[in-house]
Amino acid sequence: MKFSLTNKFKERFYDAIKLKDEKFIFNSLYEISPADITILLNEFNSTDSKYVLDIIDLSISSKIISELDQDTRISFLKVFSAQEIAKYIEKMDSDDGADILSELDLEFRNSVIKYIKDKEKSSNLKDLIRYDDNVAGGLMAKELVRCNINWNIVQCINQIRKQAEEVSKLYSVYVTDNYGKLIGKVSLKKIIISKDKTKVKEIYDDYVISVDTSTKAEEVVIIMQKYDLDALPVVNKRGKLVGRITIDDVVDYITESADEERQIMSGISSDVEEDDSIWKLSSARLPWLIIGILGGFFGAFFLESFENSFIDNNKFFISLSFFIPLIMATGGNVGIQSSSLVIQSLSNPNVFQDSVFIRLFKVSIIAIINGLVLASIVYFGINFIIPDNNKISFIVSFSLFTVVIISSLMGTITPIILDKLGFNPALASGPFITTSIDILGLAIYFMVAIFLNSY
Amino acid sequence: MKFSLTNKFKERFYDAIKLKDEKFIFNSLYEISPADITILLNEFNSTDSKYVLDIIDLSISSKIISELDQDTRISFLKVFSAQEIAKYIEKMDSDDGADILSELDLEFRNSVIKYIKDKEKSSNLKDLIRYDDNVAGGLMAKELVRCNINWNIVQCINQIRKQAEEVSKLYSVYVTDNYGKLIGKVSLKKIIISKDKTKVKEIYDDYVISVDTSTKAEEVVIIMQKYDLDALPVVNKRGKLVGRITIDDVVDYITESADEERQIMSGISSDVEEDDSIWKLSSARLPWLIIGILGGFFGAFFLESFENSFIDNNKFFISLSFFIPLIMATGGNVGIQSSSLVIQSLSNPNVFQDSVFIRLFKVSIIAIINGLVLASIVYFGINFIIPDNNKISFIVSFSLFTVVIISSLMGTITPIILDKLGFNPALASGPFITTSIDILGLAIYFMVAIFLNSY
Repeated sequence: MKFSLTNKFKERFYDAIKLKDEKFIFNSLYEISPADITILLNEFNSTDSKYVLDIIDLSISSKIISELDQDTRISFLKVFSAQEIAKYIEKMDSDDGADILSELDLEFRNSVIKYIKDKEKSSNLKDLIRYDDNVAGGLMAKELVRCNINWNIVQCINQIRKQAEEVSKLYSVYVTDNYGKLIGKVSLKKIIISKDKTKVKEIYDDYVISVDTSTKAEEVVIIMQKYDLDALPVVNKRGKLVGRITIDDVVDYITESADEERQIMSGISSDVEEDDSIWKLSSARLPWLIIGILGGFFGAFFLESFENSFIDNNKFFISLSFFIPLIMATGGNVGIQSSSLVIQSLSNPNVFQDSVFIRLFKVSIIAIINGLVLASIVYFGINFIIPDNNKISFIVSFSLFTVVIISSLMGTITPIILDKLGFNPALASGPFITTSIDILGLAIYFMVAIFLNSY
Repeated sequence: MKFSLTNKFKERFYDAIKLKDEKFIFNSLYEISPADITILLNEFNSTDSKYVLDIIDLSISSKIISELDQDTRISFLKVFSAQEIAKYIEKMDSDDGADILSELDLEFRNSVIKYIKDKEKSSNLKDLIRYDDNVAGGLMAKELVRCNINWNIVQCINQIRKQAEEVSKLYSVYVTDNYGKLIGKVSLKKIIISKDKTKVKEIYDDYVISVDTSTKAEEVVIIMQKYDLDALPVVNKRGKLVGRITIDDVVDYITESADEERQIMSGISSDVEEDDSIWKLSSARLPWLIIGILGGFFGAFFLESFENSFIDNNKFFISLSFFIPLIMATGGNVGIQSSSLVIQSLSNPNVFQDSVFIRLFKVSIIAIINGLVLASIVYFGINFIIPDNNKISFIVSFSLFTVVIISSLMGTITPIILDKLGFNPALASGPFITTSIDILGLAIYFMVAIFLNSY
């Protein structure tokens, strides 16, 4: 049943589109998964892809649309009318539908909503688009099966039957009181193995973890992972059950965040992939490169201010400049190592986290140990490369020690500050901080050199 | 029901351990989740933690042990006897049990297995430890519910009832033929809403995605994400159903890989966390820092070989050295950007991926565009900083252009080669490659300078 696309099939398929051979298109995509069809459609333009979607089953085509990445979808949906989009959204879970609606212009969005026939669905959607992407309300779907605590298993099964088509992934039935307040859950397994007349009250589990609509997405991820949940119910301020978040949304969120973090760490400014256009790819890279260049100019300015010392103390300064790369590279490496550990612990918070003060103390001890080790290696190394030049080797190893300490502290503090200010702490491993640490290292190096040289 | 640990509680709890106040320990941990108890136990030594585990419910304590991270567990289990470990493993899903067994010495492992009373469980475990960690066989659990295609719903429900306690998370029942070959699945939802006399044959879904025991873990992750699966059945070479992988294992795998990748990218050599010991943290950082230092020495050697040119052409070479940081930083930034995009596309392979040749062509065009933009900024920038020095600004901008192109190509090719050789391509963003690109940039810079200066 596995599907693998060949270039030959792709060409045959392209011909079928041009010849409007609906039968071939329908048959060759029959029982092929939405994800595989998406990969095939990526090869064609929007109009051709839309033509294919109109032929295949609506449940498949709506899944394809809901799983496109945001940028692709925004441009793809430009060839659809409001009525057509409404038809697809009607087939989707409300969370996916709301994601699409929130990508549309306000005016167009309202006309799409007008075309949605199912009144419950459209009111659910209107409700969901009010939430931000990065809170529980923005991740949840409205579709879920709930039962009243006073029901028996038969009533419960009838409820499941009624909503079975709407709720695509069913893990648990949520138990509410007469006011709609969430008070527990029953697993499907328990429902299956219980007798028909059993009361929900007798078998339900009153230990149910839930979040508030305003809980942050990162916290949702942590809770679902920590407690190993397939689905997490969402309640409003008054404890009323309003939606649920399923594990697949969380998996998507985790991989997207990891991709985003890697891009930030490597200085790429917008969400790009290798197969995007050349123009998009090069403009995503330029901003941070230019910032790096400005840092480089700053370094040049700084060095230029020592020009006279260079000329006066020719041989000394020339020897000094040989070790610029060593100082800069080590400072950068130490800074990235430090920030990376802090970023990791910020994304896995722990109740007994050490205080910032204790962390800085620990970081300082580690920096002193590593600084001493590296400084000794450099001291003996330079004595070996340039014998009879104790002064240079002392200056370089002493500045290296200082650079290691200061880079460690900067690498540790910066992500903590960024996080407190509400920015993604991964920025601290990006080119901006790296370049700053480079220049700082350079400044320390020359200042130490001039200070020690004057004695 | 949410639990938050205070320092006061921690102290009170510590006293309870010392006073052997079992009642307090049992009551205060009652209905607290395993994940929260783990965080609390992290604060105590192995003997004290073991004492607590012996008091609380076995199903909770075995979950705590199964969710510890590998390093912590290996050292923690040192205070347990073979019989005690067997008792916990007996309570776990077979995949978690097998993970623990594979961490033990061969001899100790065999005596643990001897203490496992349930014969089916011990044979399952012996079967599972044969598999590598990074293939489907190493991720799967043996516990699953299967039914024969010729059964009816009642038979199916009886089977679920029989295995209900063993299978902790139940999503689907797998359908096999008379020979145990996997031929389909039925969702629990469908079982609930079907009549008792319905035959499995009538309601089962013959479209079931499965993997082989030898399928790589990364591929398992991609398949489960792509097809949005909660559980993935695993078959042997002859198509016989032998196990299943659940989404929670995949979530753990994804976050672990992301953490590992970040550590590799930032040059930390072993799996450490911020709260590890100072000694462990500093020794995890040193190896790559030392490699960076060696790179720095290499740079110093290289620059030293120009010492005479420096002395002869004093002012020219001094001005040149001002821009060493600019060249190095830009080369490093470009290299990391390029490798990061390749790493991303290597981890999300796509059937219609462009060939390596087309990718390199595209990367070269982007490099030329960005190189030209950056080189012009630098050319005009230097003319502004050091007026009347066209030669320097020409040399710096021309070398910068060359450095951008070469760093782009190296950043693109290195992860592809590492991947082909079976290494983690994320290594390409690590300090080793970064340092190499730094030094390469420096070499290009001085070679271009000397070449252009001689005209």
